Amino acid sequence: MSKNKIPYKTYLTEEELPKAWYNIRADMKTDHRPILNPGTLKPVTAEELAPVFCDELVKQELNDKDRFIEIPEEIRNFYKMYRPSPLVRAYCLEEALGTPAKIYYKYEGGNTSGSHKLNSAIAQAYYAKEQGLRGVTTETGAGQWGTAMSMACGYFGLDLKVFMVKVSAQQKPYRKAVMETYGAAVTPSPSDTTEIGRKILAKDPETGGSLGCAISEAVEAAVTTDGYRYVLGSVLNQVLLHQTVIGLEAKTAFEKLGEHPDIVIGCAGGGSNLGGLMGPFMAEKLAGKDAPYFLAVEPASCPTMTRGRFAYDFCDTGMVTPLAKMYTVGAQFIPSSSHAGGLRYHGMSPILSQLYHDGYIDEARSYNQTAVFEAATQFARVEGTLPAPESAHAIRAAIEEALKCKETGEAKTILFGLSGTGYFDMGAYMQYNDGSMTDNIPTDEDLERGFASLPNVPADI
Amino acid sequence: MSKNKIPYKTYLTEEELPKAWYNIRADMKTDHRPILNPGTLKPVTAEELAPVFCDELVKQELNDKDRFIEIPEEIRNFYKMYRPSPLVRAYCLEEALGTPAKIYYKYEGGNTSGSHKLNSAIAQAYYAKEQGLRGVTTETGAGQWGTAMSMACGYFGLDLKVFMVKVSAQQKPYRKAVMETYGAAVTPSPSDTTEIGRKILAKDPETGGSLGCAISEAVEAAVTTDGYRYVLGSVLNQVLLHQTVIGLEAKTAFEKLGEHPDIVIGCAGGGSNLGGLMGPFMAEKLAGKDAPYFLAVEPASCPTMTRGRFAYDFCDTGMVTPLAKMYTVGAQFIPSSSHAGGLRYHGMSPILSQLYHDGYIDEARSYNQTAVFEAATQFARVEGTLPAPESAHAIRAAIEEALKCKETGEAKTILFGLSGTGYFDMGAYMQYNDGSMTDNIPTDEDLERGFASLPNVPADI
Repeated sequence: MSKNKIPYKTYLTEEELPKAWYNIRADMKTDHRPILNPGTLKPVTAEELAPVFCDELVKQELNDKDRFIEIPEEIRNFYKMYRPSPLVRAYCLEEALGTPAKIYYKYEGGNTSGSHKLNSAIAQAYYAKEQGLRGVTTETGAGQWGTAMSMACGYFGLDLKVFMVKVSAQQKPYRKAVMETYGAAVTPSPSDTTEIGRKILAKDPETGGSLGCAISEAVEAAVTTDGYRYVLGSVLNQVLLHQTVIGLEAKTAFEKLGEHPDIVIGCAGGGSNLGGLMGPFMAEKLAGKDAPYFLAVEPASCPTMTRGRFAYDFCDTGMVTPLAKMYTVGAQFIPSSSHAGGLRYHGMSPILSQLYHDGYIDEARSYNQTAVFEAATQFARVEGTLPAPESAHAIRAAIEEALKCKETGEAKTILFGLSGTGYFDMGAYMQYNDGSMTDNIPTDEDLERGFASLPNVPADI
Repeated sequence: MSKNKIPYKTYLTEEELPKAWYNIRADMKTDHRPILNPGTLKPVTAEELAPVFCDELVKQELNDKDRFIEIPEEIRNFYKMYRPSPLVRAYCLEEALGTPAKIYYKYEGGNTSGSHKLNSAIAQAYYAKEQGLRGVTTETGAGQWGTAMSMACGYFGLDLKVFMVKVSAQQKPYRKAVMETYGAAVTPSPSDTTEIGRKILAKDPETGGSLGCAISEAVEAAVTTDGYRYVLGSVLNQVLLHQTVIGLEAKTAFEKLGEHPDIVIGCAGGGSNLGGLMGPFMAEKLAGKDAPYFLAVEPASCPTMTRGRFAYDFCDTGMVTPLAKMYTVGAQFIPSSSHAGGLRYHGMSPILSQLYHDGYIDEARSYNQTAVFEAATQFARVEGTLPAPESAHAIRAAIEEALKCKETGEAKTILFGLSGTGYFDMGAYMQYNDGSMTDNIPTDEDLERGFASLPNVPADI
């Protein structure tokens, strides 16, 4: 086997690091439907959001005008510790597949937090610090977001309270330890430190918790603690905005290579990774130019885009947040146990939902997790990097697309996002290795039960 | 706190990746004493080593003539997947310490194996493949070497049998899972798959194993299996040779910066990391030129250089290997439980031992592990990267040297090796975080018991 093709990586210079994030809403033909106050069914205002989110982040959340939003210098300097991230040509994978396709991946796992989540975490911590806050609260399930936020708050000397889904804290004690090493206070959720937590515990003292409950506790802790706000790692517009640094760098790297992707593939949970990678390439399509084929990949166990509905829904299972118009399987839908924890969210970013609904995202596809781990293992062996289960959904799709090229003889250029590493997911790899991993796909009846929980919002809103 | 200093990282171009490794033995005024056959007390020959090691690696092991040994193109191409590794200016740490010193670290944790071990693993796998072997055997304790070797063998399609110290396999199931994901067969040692393993189990069925026993099993499995050889991740000359890619890159990066380190610091277990970082800078000292101050750092729990003897000793606790003249606390010395597993080796590379004995390595220093984890945590919070416990020994020393500069007002340039990340050491971080970590320093009596096991080699040999 020849191993002589070079170079494997395209690095940008620090000067080529983007100076502004790309705000896709300014270019969208149809903006996403407004976020609603669940009581009044009226669009939420900046004033309503101010007790929950940092002021500057509220502005970004509601900004549908400015195409570019400058990245403050202190954030850019932090980015320089691990960015620009490499665009890698997967020569070894191509060779193993025998495909004429060119496969590239944008690699976001090369920082200690291990994923792309740090791109938004550092921005949110910066704005909190700038506002003179003492600290922030957040929730974490799989742990990537909590880890990234812990690093960011450690860097800026900001307090952080993380509500970690209790069953995750028990199953992943090392994730908890990483956050604590960075100085975060980690509370298994539900806890007796909040009213909502005590209420849930009174009902069911043995519950392992859920992301929805953790969100509710984190929001309550933020609004009831002086000098605190709440931060979130996906779904929101501000998060997608920050994550466009991924796609902007990838675009610049392709320009330097004199190439252009024919397909852009990203895994999709709440949408932070997919939106960040895809957004800047989507700009071409929104401007009516030739653009890549956009492919979103999700787990069959939580098929938001492939089997969900485009409807107003709560952003949390606790039903205390505003309503967003998005693809959803229903806030009460409980996905069966899947190790791609970061993709188990019931909804999808309103921006991406709108783009998918309007046909700008060409396709959504779902995979069983055993197929995903098969791809992850193949990738690790030939390319070296051990992917996060979430990212491996995109790998699976890239391999399938490359094998289609092998059949047709087309030499397509494929770009996918390798959003993170799988160091803290070895329990799932062990299950795959020993053959005990199963696929748990919801039945139509399971989905109907989720849809039944959708709030009743008149069609004309 | 100002966070505006840039750049944080110096990257070399792929063209600046070293084309040859540096063989320090060609420059040493006094070569290390020969490795002896323990039966005859005569220097071992290439013929004696051939059944155990790959032919090309035997040549490298015995080569004391060629200053540079070319890096084959296929190894260079693999290196390009994760090298040149960055030289990072630790501005945030400097600022946190308030020191006038400039602190740099050469970061080797940016590959999936998570440490510098991959630099030699890929070379050893390459030569095994070139020789037409079917596979290789090795042992692993902490797991960094086993992980690196699994990646390397996965890449070249070579079989790998890893004998993993049984207690480590039980304590670190995720390490085992990583190796298996890369395709390695991992056997907890002692096992019933080898004669020596069965012998040990017959004596003590409940034993948790030891590195010495795992080495013995791996060597036996290599010499008794057709088309197999044995590979090792430290101590040997060949390993130090491959690891010089670290120091060569660091030297080039400093030349590009127009700077020169005043102090070079590395953690030292078997010597692979320290020798690789330090070797190319040592060349200046061996040529009689101005050179940095060289500082080796080891755990107080296994004080090979600081409290050991310079004597002939076995390389394994099973006493089946040849004898090497090195700093040692005795092959039968059992270090008390310490989480810097990679630094628990009883001996030290013969090359480094000779350089220390002859005064070329200026100082060896030891630290308690709680002091080391204190430094690790401080570093993680300000610099972002979560260090391996082994690497954190060097961090502790760098911090102390920087604080000395703060007292004296000197603006020294400090370089240390950040050899790996701590993702798989969170159990130890948890102990540090919850205050249950203890320091276990051997008494003089403990050491005397170790010295009592030294083989009787006449002084004139």
